[in-house]
Amino acid sequence: MSSEFARIAMIEQLLTRSSEEVRLGIGDDCAVLNASGQARVWTIDAAVEGVHFSRAHMSLEQAAHRAFMAAASDVAAMGGRCVAALSALTLPVACSDAELKQLVTGIARAADACACPVIGGNLARAPTLTLSTSVLGECPRRVLTRAGAREGDAIYVTGTLGGAALGLRALLAGRTDDPRFASMIAMFRAPRARLDVALTLAELASAAIDLSDGLVQDLTHLCRASGVGAELEATLLPQLPDFAAAAAALGCSPHALALSGGEDYELLFTAPASVPRELGVRIGTITGARGRVMVRDASGQPLDVASGFDHFAES
Amino acid sequence: MSSEFARIAMIEQLLTRSSEEVRLGIGDDCAVLNASGQARVWTIDAAVEGVHFSRAHMSLEQAAHRAFMAAASDVAAMGGRCVAALSALTLPVACSDAELKQLVTGIARAADACACPVIGGNLARAPTLTLSTSVLGECPRRVLTRAGAREGDAIYVTGTLGGAALGLRALLAGRTDDPRFASMIAMFRAPRARLDVALTLAELASAAIDLSDGLVQDLTHLCRASGVGAELEATLLPQLPDFAAAAAALGCSPHALALSGGEDYELLFTAPASVPRELGVRIGTITGARGRVMVRDASGQPLDVASGFDHFAES
Repeated sequence: MSSEFARIAMIEQLLTRSSEEVRLGIGDDCAVLNASGQARVWTIDAAVEGVHFSRAHMSLEQAAHRAFMAAASDVAAMGGRCVAALSALTLPVACSDAELKQLVTGIARAADACACPVIGGNLARAPTLTLSTSVLGECPRRVLTRAGAREGDAIYVTGTLGGAALGLRALLAGRTDDPRFASMIAMFRAPRARLDVALTLAELASAAIDLSDGLVQDLTHLCRASGVGAELEATLLPQLPDFAAAAAALGCSPHALALSGGEDYELLFTAPASVPRELGVRIGTITGARGRVMVRDASGQPLDVASGFDHFAES
Repeated sequence: MSSEFARIAMIEQLLTRSSEEVRLGIGDDCAVLNASGQARVWTIDAAVEGVHFSRAHMSLEQAAHRAFMAAASDVAAMGGRCVAALSALTLPVACSDAELKQLVTGIARAADACACPVIGGNLARAPTLTLSTSVLGECPRRVLTRAGAREGDAIYVTGTLGGAALGLRALLAGRTDDPRFASMIAMFRAPRARLDVALTLAELASAAIDLSDGLVQDLTHLCRASGVGAELEATLLPQLPDFAAAAAALGCSPHALALSGGEDYELLFTAPASVPRELGVRIGTITGARGRVMVRDASGQPLDVASGFDHFAES
């Protein structure tokens, strides 16, 4: 294992990017950002080995890429673009230089994909490998929060739902190389923050949240913040074409995965008017039933979301 | 243990403060800071149980206070004032609500002392208790870096040196209640970020760094960044009045503690002209011997800093 000094030099070499917004990057007590006339959004997220990821299911490079994307996803949910990030790693003594390089390579790849230079951080020894990422973003058009949904707004979601959750279940079931689950496993291992649509959503959406905990839970957060309720239509939930068959092959309910699987890192948003199809699919309507999220099945009957959720958690 | 939702509500209640600079605090995907026309400094620091602190040596409230101060100290070292912070906690399953409340109370106390509202964060489960703090600051006068020291500048330090390191050694030796070590133990348990002098230093100092790793090591960082060397005079190192006797009682070298003990969280700075006594004590001079830090004893003879450091680490 190299000295901390040598390790920081290696990290600096892998992560340094030029940016007009950054006056000083890795190497001093703080990074320095140039003055900006805009509101800034700011988040921090931690990924813990054995809790948020496992080396049995993904490479360290993938784990680090994913940890970064999870933090950047919060900026997308605010309708922002990324400005810069700090990355704090706690490393077990057994972590080799090669492993550290894999981690930093994953961070660098995600940072490049998010146009978000890593300009500082922290290295510490710890019993557990943890990656903490703090991202600063900017909202050039409008700051989009969870709190703007109004009764009658339509509810939309970007991308598809449940794929990452099914990918994780395939990994847990040892189906790592089964081609039926390849796309879902890839979604679990390599989520992308939806920064591509974030600035457009800032103009069209009334409220937004990123999907990390699962659709129903995250929608409940949005409804609480907005003082509204929601009705979802289970038949409208967007899924990969081969999703239902793949879920059945593992004995999973496609609806349960889509409603409460989590890990999607897509954006859930509401809008008073219809939005272009490429931004998202309509899945329901905001109601006045404050704090209440209801899901209707194909026949219009309410599904019991709470027990569905619990059942899923036990499976 | 309460639900994550109830825990976040408790944390929000303990941490929420009003601030003109904050548009949106805890509760959304990101916190939102109002636009500012100034350069900002930004840092992240992690404190890991069993590595950076132990419950055998301090309360959880003290540990959290200390973790926050360590991060804020980086802002002080840049000549800044704090704007806001994010706090990410990873908690073992066994962490009770009462323990979490102690942690958050310590964070709140430090945040208030630093005039630095905590406006967001993250809660995660983990095998190890970790407190990660990201602080954003602002430099209204000038951004002070490690890189501005010039040959002939005087070297100064705020406060005294070695007290916290001796306090830790007293705790490790079981002298928790020995009044000879009370002030040193207090320094170890409750460091303060030197934000009180930071803005003044931004105008007077040519370079600065905060003392976390130990005087010689941190001065070496500063010298490398500035492309200079340094000579310290061991007899000038400021110590508490009863420091030498207390060190002797534990069989420690006062000079070794002051030179390499670490944990001081004072500021080391250089200046081309003399500075008011209340800002700091002069301890040496910047030289042209790039990257080389030398310490002279009372008779002017060089002390072998490297071996002194190693010896100390082994003791």
